Amino acid sequence: MKRVLFQGERGCFSEAAAYKYFNERIDGKGFFTFEEVFQALKDDPKAYGVLPIENSLVGSIRRNYDLILDYGLAIVGEVSLKITYNLLANPGMPMSSIKEIWSHPVALEQCRNFLAAHPEFDVRPVYDTAGAAKKVKEEGQQCVGAISGPRATEIYGLDVLESKIEDHAENYTRFYVLSTNEEIATGENVKSSLVFGINDSPGILFKCLSVFALRNINLAKLESRPNLNSGKPWQYLFYIDFYGSIEDEKCSSAVENLQEVVSYLQFLGSYHVK
Amino acid sequence: MKRVLFQGERGCFSEAAAYKYFNERIDGKGFFTFEEVFQALKDDPKAYGVLPIENSLVGSIRRNYDLILDYGLAIVGEVSLKITYNLLANPGMPMSSIKEIWSHPVALEQCRNFLAAHPEFDVRPVYDTAGAAKKVKEEGQQCVGAISGPRATEIYGLDVLESKIEDHAENYTRFYVLSTNEEIATGENVKSSLVFGINDSPGILFKCLSVFALRNINLAKLESRPNLNSGKPWQYLFYIDFYGSIEDEKCSSAVENLQEVVSYLQFLGSYHVK
Repeated sequence: MKRVLFQGERGCFSEAAAYKYFNERIDGKGFFTFEEVFQALKDDPKAYGVLPIENSLVGSIRRNYDLILDYGLAIVGEVSLKITYNLLANPGMPMSSIKEIWSHPVALEQCRNFLAAHPEFDVRPVYDTAGAAKKVKEEGQQCVGAISGPRATEIYGLDVLESKIEDHAENYTRFYVLSTNEEIATGENVKSSLVFGINDSPGILFKCLSVFALRNINLAKLESRPNLNSGKPWQYLFYIDFYGSIEDEKCSSAVENLQEVVSYLQFLGSYHVK
Repeated sequence: MKRVLFQGERGCFSEAAAYKYFNERIDGKGFFTFEEVFQALKDDPKAYGVLPIENSLVGSIRRNYDLILDYGLAIVGEVSLKITYNLLANPGMPMSSIKEIWSHPVALEQCRNFLAAHPEFDVRPVYDTAGAAKKVKEEGQQCVGAISGPRATEIYGLDVLESKIEDHAENYTRFYVLSTNEEIATGENVKSSLVFGINDSPGILFKCLSVFALRNINLAKLESRPNLNSGKPWQYLFYIDFYGSIEDEKCSSAVENLQEVVSYLQFLGSYHVK
């Protein structure tokens, strides 16, 4: 049974993503913060981490980009999960009893229309959607509703007061599966990721992208983050996801070529997408 | 006297940025949220908004990218401000009296080392650094310190318990000056911004950047955001800042050229950088 670490309580979206990716029983453990998951992964080379990297509405979870580099982990898998939210309360509580709503700040942001239609609710951000549900249950809260995912409903034995309260139905989160050990995937449906830094010069980013374009390698994602190691403000690191494995000749040539252009390059992994 | 709107209380960094940009007395007004500033700008065509768009350590303030588009405002200026934080308390309070710290979540994140060295502090996020200082003063709090910028110290008559408590000294925030009216700047030290959307096809982003590279137009920034209007997940909008004015022939040619390649393009402004 694989040991899988994630941020959040039992029933959270990261745990659901772990089940979807590994498609088997897992030995899961939730942590309070992303940093704690990374630290625990460092301490346990056999463990996998499942961490959200991007939501299709909100954008990248930038802290995790930074932490992947800080902790020197490899990306060994990717899994995408549809996100949907329910309003949960302790059994028997009617909607009219709810005075306060608990949930993760991102979930609250993604249910803006619902919350705007209920100005009578006091909204309180907590660290995790499933954690909100757990707390409502454990404390036997009578006036508090939790906004949480479908799994939390069963796990904590709460009632659904209203389902699918998200603003946009097309709401997905991509998770990376991380490990201290590199595992290079090959074949179909494989993506690769790398990060690079550049010295400012005209057209430099254009040159970097040319190594992919000239080989017809398709990019899936380009994300820029401040490069804190440059010692200068407004210097960036660029994270690129592209289709193909580093074991494909054209991909490895592209990365070799990129190495000639950039000031810093770190390959992060080739992995299956589920 | 220019009417300038921003998010935060008197003494906040956005107000400091407004003073630096306009270099004169301003008729300033602070709001609780970014959205409220945008709404107020829409309602008052003579007003300017000064809003943070990027911090050199944390990255882009993505909500404001989205709001610029949502409200159809023009970028008419940019100003950069050095960020430094002090720990403030009511006069006469020693460090040993402090049990709780109030500040904006980003400020708390940027003073992690200081807070880690003081595990005895309870940390409470509030909506604005200057707002934290104001609240500590107004409520006469005896056990609460506020992490705030230098201007708030004088304005609210608080003591500095410890100065420059930020983790990184090279900490800057860029602010955009926004207006409902376009004002095209020309000459030296001018940047321009635009946003575009693309239909997925191999090398498409490379083609987009080529219109700048082939004309030796230097890019200052590339930021990607989810394109919520595409109706499909994992479609992006790209925000580009480049050096030059849209009234320069090579810049206007580049933008015309870009228009042929992209599925959507919105020019956001040519503006002086201070």
